[in-house]
Amino acid sequence: MEAEALPMVKSLNLVRDDPPVIAPPAPCITYSGSDWGMKVHLVCFGKCKDTGMDTVGTAPASLFTYLSIQAFSPDIVVSAWTAGGFKIKGGSISDIFVATATVNHDRRIPIPGFQEYGVGKRVTISAPNMRRELGLKAGVVSSGNSLDYTKEDMALMEQHEAAVKEMEAAAVAWSASFFKCPLLCLKSITDIVDGDKPAQEEFLENLHKSADALQAIIPKALQFMSGKKLSEL
Amino acid sequence: MEAEALPMVKSLNLVRDDPPVIAPPAPCITYSGSDWGMKVHLVCFGKCKDTGMDTVGTAPASLFTYLSIQAFSPDIVVSAWTAGGFKIKGGSISDIFVATATVNHDRRIPIPGFQEYGVGKRVTISAPNMRRELGLKAGVVSSGNSLDYTKEDMALMEQHEAAVKEMEAAAVAWSASFFKCPLLCLKSITDIVDGDKPAQEEFLENLHKSADALQAIIPKALQFMSGKKLSEL
Repeated sequence: MEAEALPMVKSLNLVRDDPPVIAPPAPCITYSGSDWGMKVHLVCFGKCKDTGMDTVGTAPASLFTYLSIQAFSPDIVVSAWTAGGFKIKGGSISDIFVATATVNHDRRIPIPGFQEYGVGKRVTISAPNMRRELGLKAGVVSSGNSLDYTKEDMALMEQHEAAVKEMEAAAVAWSASFFKCPLLCLKSITDIVDGDKPAQEEFLENLHKSADALQAIIPKALQFMSGKKLSEL
Repeated sequence: MEAEALPMVKSLNLVRDDPPVIAPPAPCITYSGSDWGMKVHLVCFGKCKDTGMDTVGTAPASLFTYLSIQAFSPDIVVSAWTAGGFKIKGGSISDIFVATATVNHDRRIPIPGFQEYGVGKRVTISAPNMRRELGLKAGVVSSGNSLDYTKEDMALMEQHEAAVKEMEAAAVAWSASFFKCPLLCLKSITDIVDGDKPAQEEFLENLHKSADALQAIIPKALQFMSGKKLSEL
């Protein structure tokens, strides 16, 4: 979402790529720069032309991740945005979680083989050293296309021991896997999934606070990654 | 799905594009040929490399539709595959429905603006003359990432008067909309959503029968479309 991306553009001194690196008609807006000896490209998925809303959800995420990796051939993708956290997994507002794996919680296909395909579990870069250095938490990130959840969604999240619930990471991981591109997911908590308030209320209340927490961590995370092998993260 | 695509490849005398027109790493396999004065390209989304399953659902559909339209610049996209039907909307096994519109039933985002984005309703080519000529039915096609449905899914399907439930059309429509590419959805009914049997049982029982019905209609639909304007369909 633009609200999540723009503070990072500013804090990383990135400049909007013009002409666009991801060719139209995709609405992605990208920003590039150099920090700590690395090229950094930030991809903002862009707005829905019909509703003016940010293009959230797994269908845009799979497409725009694929186009982004085609355009920039990165060594690593960092999926950094806001999410819901589970207090049963130690999550509080503005905590930053690193994904240990991603799953889908709204793709129930009870046919042999397709069940596993639906969940689509993928192991991600869990960065234990970075977590220790920066005080980040760790857990499974579960993706679905709704801001709320059904009891069926919750059953799958519980089964896969989700610590974080959001709407894109599993699709980002799926597209990155085609390119064998490593994925690091950093998720800043805006709302408590197993709390008392509806997600949409907490989300709107905490979005800025949570985006600020992410903005503070991203430069530190990039600096930590600079010059390191994946196995050293 | 391959099981749905291969009978069409045979009946349309298409030849596999080699080298691939949609470049790797996308797993799409495409087949091309000429029929009734038109170039016809059939895109099979391909298999998941981890599970060997067909890449069903909206995340693959958005990506592979986008790549397909980039590769072939078609005048029209025909989304032709199997689906669930509603008996309350007159659906029976092996009926072919033409979509009048597509919606999503598993993207609940109760924030102003995002609610509409989540449903993502798009009007499609409803082809009244083709329907009359070929004896096809019409209705709203609703997409979600599960073969079954939750009560929340059903509430949205009822709200949007869905006649057909499947797992990709809304994402195909979304990607096609970037290119302003018209979309015709032909859906062959494998199972009855508001019936007594679980979708997975009926689906497996009727997949071949339903794919045969689709295979019989596709050449007639293409022949009908040949030389006509969209407004004449």
